[in-house]
Amino acid sequence: MQTPQKIAIVGSGLVGSLLAIYLRKAGHTVHIYDRSPDIRQIEFSGRSINLAMSNRGWKALDGVGVGDAVRQIAIPMDKRAIHLVDKLNFQAYGQEGEAIYSISRGLLNRKMIDLAEAAGAEFFFEQKIWDVTLADATLHIGESERGAWEEKKYDMVFGADGAFSRIRHRMQRQSMFDYSQEFLKIGYKELNIPANPDGTHKLDPNSFHIWPRGEYMLIALPNLDGSFTCTLFMPFEGDNSLAELKDINLVKAFFAKNFPDSIEVIPMLAEDFFKNPTSTLVTMKCFPWAYEDKIALIGDACHAIVPFYGQGMNAGFEDITVLNEMMQLYGNDWKTILSEYQKSRKPNADAIAELSYRNFMEMSTKTADEKFLLQKKIEKVFSDKYPDLWIPLYSRVTFSDRPYAEALAIGDAQNTIMEEVLRMDNIESIWDSAEVENKILELLQDK
Amino acid sequence: MQTPQKIAIVGSGLVGSLLAIYLRKAGHTVHIYDRSPDIRQIEFSGRSINLAMSNRGWKALDGVGVGDAVRQIAIPMDKRAIHLVDKLNFQAYGQEGEAIYSISRGLLNRKMIDLAEAAGAEFFFEQKIWDVTLADATLHIGESERGAWEEKKYDMVFGADGAFSRIRHRMQRQSMFDYSQEFLKIGYKELNIPANPDGTHKLDPNSFHIWPRGEYMLIALPNLDGSFTCTLFMPFEGDNSLAELKDINLVKAFFAKNFPDSIEVIPMLAEDFFKNPTSTLVTMKCFPWAYEDKIALIGDACHAIVPFYGQGMNAGFEDITVLNEMMQLYGNDWKTILSEYQKSRKPNADAIAELSYRNFMEMSTKTADEKFLLQKKIEKVFSDKYPDLWIPLYSRVTFSDRPYAEALAIGDAQNTIMEEVLRMDNIESIWDSAEVENKILELLQDK
Repeated sequence: MQTPQKIAIVGSGLVGSLLAIYLRKAGHTVHIYDRSPDIRQIEFSGRSINLAMSNRGWKALDGVGVGDAVRQIAIPMDKRAIHLVDKLNFQAYGQEGEAIYSISRGLLNRKMIDLAEAAGAEFFFEQKIWDVTLADATLHIGESERGAWEEKKYDMVFGADGAFSRIRHRMQRQSMFDYSQEFLKIGYKELNIPANPDGTHKLDPNSFHIWPRGEYMLIALPNLDGSFTCTLFMPFEGDNSLAELKDINLVKAFFAKNFPDSIEVIPMLAEDFFKNPTSTLVTMKCFPWAYEDKIALIGDACHAIVPFYGQGMNAGFEDITVLNEMMQLYGNDWKTILSEYQKSRKPNADAIAELSYRNFMEMSTKTADEKFLLQKKIEKVFSDKYPDLWIPLYSRVTFSDRPYAEALAIGDAQNTIMEEVLRMDNIESIWDSAEVENKILELLQDK
Repeated sequence: MQTPQKIAIVGSGLVGSLLAIYLRKAGHTVHIYDRSPDIRQIEFSGRSINLAMSNRGWKALDGVGVGDAVRQIAIPMDKRAIHLVDKLNFQAYGQEGEAIYSISRGLLNRKMIDLAEAAGAEFFFEQKIWDVTLADATLHIGESERGAWEEKKYDMVFGADGAFSRIRHRMQRQSMFDYSQEFLKIGYKELNIPANPDGTHKLDPNSFHIWPRGEYMLIALPNLDGSFTCTLFMPFEGDNSLAELKDINLVKAFFAKNFPDSIEVIPMLAEDFFKNPTSTLVTMKCFPWAYEDKIALIGDACHAIVPFYGQGMNAGFEDITVLNEMMQLYGNDWKTILSEYQKSRKPNADAIAELSYRNFMEMSTKTADEKFLLQKKIEKVFSDKYPDLWIPLYSRVTFSDRPYAEALAIGDAQNTIMEEVLRMDNIESIWDSAEVENKILELLQDK
């Protein structure tokens, strides 16, 4: 058992709230600060992509006994529904029984804060943290950046304050602090598919719906109330860009031409399109994540990624799993706990950043590509027969808790093999043959 | 002729001062702010690497008629003097008459400020800029970050305030601003070789001296007063690291063993080693560099690089050359001037960052490698005979004003060719033969 510490968490988002529960269970005093009002008392913002909870997320929730409470607000999606202009394809995500789970970010965040409060964490909303003194874990809080500040000293501070973290901002000013932020040239906009009058879903509720169109795409994830939260991803500038969709008529014409089957299910298209903000997508990396035994960054505050693998929250929750493992291993030696935590997580955070970046191409372009779908079919046949020899990359990332860095490395090796397989003569007709199977076995042996 | 503008430059370093001269010649009012005292009235800091002025630097100085004033404080270095543990090799940098020029940063900075003042620029020292309002080019100046600030409004502000630029700091807070900073695990320390009693140099004054030792190295560049400014580059941690050199005896023993011929010429070794600070090396990239027609970054403020190609100042000066070209082309359209300036410079800044990063390996390891020296000899023979077909990478970077990005691309292609040439049988004996010459001609044709 650890000696109780007085710990501040900055950020009452998903990672901050779950971390609070873990730290409370370990016996610590936990204060959570957030610059925003209590999300339980406000409307959602209309700029969120629905979450896709998968294995790593569930593991972290179950590790502290709150998984089942969250399952009540989750909808399983066991396949992609791929809306081509003229047809609809389905592609299973994994084996029978494997699924990712659609959850509204707002609903989940409200629930997590309830759970953290129930576990004894104390929340302080509308408290703006402007700075932190690293050496003695002191928060500087005030109404405005240039106004008067109040000081709150803790034993330790966790920065769970997201991609634009103030805690990291202070750490960045240290010498030898590596940092990068890179914005995609693609923005996104939230849209909505309402429920049918009887409360049922207008599209298959157990699918992750994609309209892949190359440089842009539309996705839709189901909600409990029968609606879907849709997200349009599109370049800011150039051909087929957000800049081109200047008025209601242009938006309607664009959707009618490119997403014809979406027209009847998105009745508020034109209104929502101009009401909802356009959001940006950033990949942020940094190191170190910890300062002595005083400060640590966690979740998006130290590794913000683009959303195309659905792993942002899952990766943040896995940070907590690993931090908790280090707490079990190193007792009261917080310097070692934090240092081993960052050492373990950094290469995996980098790997999921890379995988997420690449996956935009997979979702927006490859899911509409016959060769890619053929590759997936070949992999599935082989993987069904030799489950120990071939776990597909998507499954390694989504349905396992093996390190992301391992998934990236093995995925690259598998891809090299599949490129060779797809070059086989007549692969379209022999894809399900012993010849292909033997070829894969042989190529696996060569490695 | 442009309409006169009221322009502030933040930073009175080399780039800020030269930019001031260009802007004064174009008829603008120029105020230069610096948080530090006037460098003409203080001692130098003991943390500077001597500058190596080369073609791009001279071009920018000559473009505004101040090259000759700077030549008075410059010492030509036409070769590397490579100090192996048991012998001394020389390697010419370019063709007959080509040289890089050693200049003390402090001396040059003093001279540039004198020249800028003579051109009518007004300097304001010990003025701390804490923030800038991008939209109306207003500087916020005050004694302390949290104290009272004064506002100064300009038509335009240039941020020439170095790798840790406050002007960039504000630009970083914009959405869609790409940024990265990456520190080397190598630090550096300034040392000194004093002049002989008669004022002559203890080592050949027209050489860039290197003691290449793999993961670490020592360099020495000549000064006008007969001394050399030396720089030790070394990993912070691990084997043969700065961390290991904990006391005077360890430092002396390390130098005696690894730099035996340095012992008699660095008499103050142990004292300087502990008196002088250890400095860090960072590569910083960002984009955009400009905000509308109001703000632009220049020099290290938008592209800080590691010093191993001797191009930091040269690249900063070349920014000014290009900015001036755009001023000639686009008259009073400052939005286009700044936008074309950043478009032209960004890929070249990225290229010299990459080349500089790679060159640590070349300096510290390859200059001690027989194979590398052989490659350089083969390139020289071929380049002497076919000067239009083969300009070595070093010469493209140092003795030309063709874009850095082009140098990087051609350099990579040349390297591929040389790798193949070095694999030829008996290359050590046939390196100067028609066979090798024909092989290179053939490989060049294939490309």
